[in-house]
Amino acid sequence: METIIAIDAMGGDIAPYSPVKASRLAGDFQDLKIILVGDEKKISFLMSGEEKSYTTVLHCDKHISMKDGISRKLLREKENTMRKVLSLVGEKKSDCALSAGNTAAFVSIAISELGLLQNVARPAIAVLLPNVSGSFSIFLDVGANILTKPEHFVQYGLMGSLYAEKVFGIVHPKVGLLNVGTESTKGGELRRQAFNLLSASQKINFIGNIEGQDLFTGKVHVVVSDGFTGNVVLKVSEGILKTFKTDLKREFSRNILGKIGSFILKGHFKRFTGRVDYAEYGGGLLLGVNGVVIISHGKSSPRAILSAIKLGKKIIENNFLQTLQKELNKI
Amino acid sequence: METIIAIDAMGGDIAPYSPVKASRLAGDFQDLKIILVGDEKKISFLMSGEEKSYTTVLHCDKHISMKDGISRKLLREKENTMRKVLSLVGEKKSDCALSAGNTAAFVSIAISELGLLQNVARPAIAVLLPNVSGSFSIFLDVGANILTKPEHFVQYGLMGSLYAEKVFGIVHPKVGLLNVGTESTKGGELRRQAFNLLSASQKINFIGNIEGQDLFTGKVHVVVSDGFTGNVVLKVSEGILKTFKTDLKREFSRNILGKIGSFILKGHFKRFTGRVDYAEYGGGLLLGVNGVVIISHGKSSPRAILSAIKLGKKIIENNFLQTLQKELNKI
Repeated sequence: METIIAIDAMGGDIAPYSPVKASRLAGDFQDLKIILVGDEKKISFLMSGEEKSYTTVLHCDKHISMKDGISRKLLREKENTMRKVLSLVGEKKSDCALSAGNTAAFVSIAISELGLLQNVARPAIAVLLPNVSGSFSIFLDVGANILTKPEHFVQYGLMGSLYAEKVFGIVHPKVGLLNVGTESTKGGELRRQAFNLLSASQKINFIGNIEGQDLFTGKVHVVVSDGFTGNVVLKVSEGILKTFKTDLKREFSRNILGKIGSFILKGHFKRFTGRVDYAEYGGGLLLGVNGVVIISHGKSSPRAILSAIKLGKKIIENNFLQTLQKELNKI
Repeated sequence: METIIAIDAMGGDIAPYSPVKASRLAGDFQDLKIILVGDEKKISFLMSGEEKSYTTVLHCDKHISMKDGISRKLLREKENTMRKVLSLVGEKKSDCALSAGNTAAFVSIAISELGLLQNVARPAIAVLLPNVSGSFSIFLDVGANILTKPEHFVQYGLMGSLYAEKVFGIVHPKVGLLNVGTESTKGGELRRQAFNLLSASQKINFIGNIEGQDLFTGKVHVVVSDGFTGNVVLKVSEGILKTFKTDLKREFSRNILGKIGSFILKGHFKRFTGRVDYAEYGGGLLLGVNGVVIISHGKSSPRAILSAIKLGKKIIENNFLQTLQKELNKI
């Protein structure tokens, strides 16, 4: 089965370098076609030739910058790289749209271009969080929807469970609600109602509230959260890991002993940082829109975009969108 | 100036061991008196004698456990260690109340026993978050108040600023609002209003929204947040650091090379973990109640309680409560 992935070549802080380099690195994947959408000249300049057998370039003059606020004018714009990759999915010319650009813009355009799946009121961004057991948990929503209502949590729980099951093969995935305490009454009216709705759902293996410290212990397979808290938590996690690494490196280079020690430990460090590096996990899946849409981190390296391509391929090969549609139609 | 600190000897997972041991370690501090409140037999059994010159034991039969939900019955109870340490402050027999027990219970009883300061609608728990520059930021609220209104953020900003200035000597401390983006329109109606109120305040050096990744970079001296997000973020941070340390240790003990390397780096590690260890930072200050109340982590070691004692002493020696009262009266 051939997979076609349309990539916004101008999206992200290291674009078009990261998307183009990632396309070249994707040569090892079987049955993959890539469409790079963006400034043809800039893209061609970065291409080496190796990727030409499976990569097409689709020229597009305009792209939305990271700083653009979401205005009505911006959303009405017909010609930009984001809209293009999404419309390719809408027209079935691509199986997946991918961008590392402005997340808020990409989510808004995805909704307008592809529409929502049946029985989904709001889409959610689901990311994979590495945990201490060497595995990961699915964490959603990390910021597609700031004004979360109780019923949205249930939709997140269901979509997250299906993602865990159908794409990653986790049987009967455990779902937890991110809260300030484990008791069902915690977290104000919003989460009390969400707790009750999640408990009542036959389709969700809801194990109750989980607290912040359990996000990285692998206690549950799927963690549902409102988009505000999810977004802050994700950025805090990234920030703390970055700070931790910088600080540790600095500490180790204080003197000659530290330098010797860290030289010896180089391989160990690399394995360890690989496990907690978001670049390995391919970015977020926009759940709830009628298409496979992957949102990569704004600071994506070529390797991070490559992971996103790999994730997209896996999602498509597992017919995830069709299953999700079917299951959502039933509720 | 003599400082008297009343400690709930039965509060926390390692009680009464941690509070009693901490009292002994506090012998180095000048002009300090400690009142240990709890089961006299258990406390006396753990005391060594050295601390007797500055430590009194006040017997109290009952204490609130970590698992007790906050019921009306619980809050009406007249005899428990938490109420006792707080009433000692209310009666001016102690300058500071300290507990590592059930946070929700301690906050509720503190409000009922001491009352709120003028112009404070809700108290907030302020913690010190270590940051990459080797310093720390003041972060509030981490869970005293889940139902945060726009005007509460301004009270937090003001109290946090005064805490930074009067206790830690930070001149004109920079204040940021934890949000999902830096633009003033981000984060829904609650934060939009909070942003405007914080901007309008003459007494707060508000520099705007900050995102999660900046929580540990020292970009601002004071970070204000609603209690729900603050609580989750604090627990996520603790969890991730714990996970990180465990994982790194395991990685380093995989083989002989790792063991040699980590032996060489032992001192570096210790310095590093000291900087990010919450035990060094003395727990949270309950801002907004009419008394100095310190809430230590439930898992507090003797060293963590000792840091809390040190923090309490510093707060009292700087006459912080009086200054706070005075400044709040002016608004």
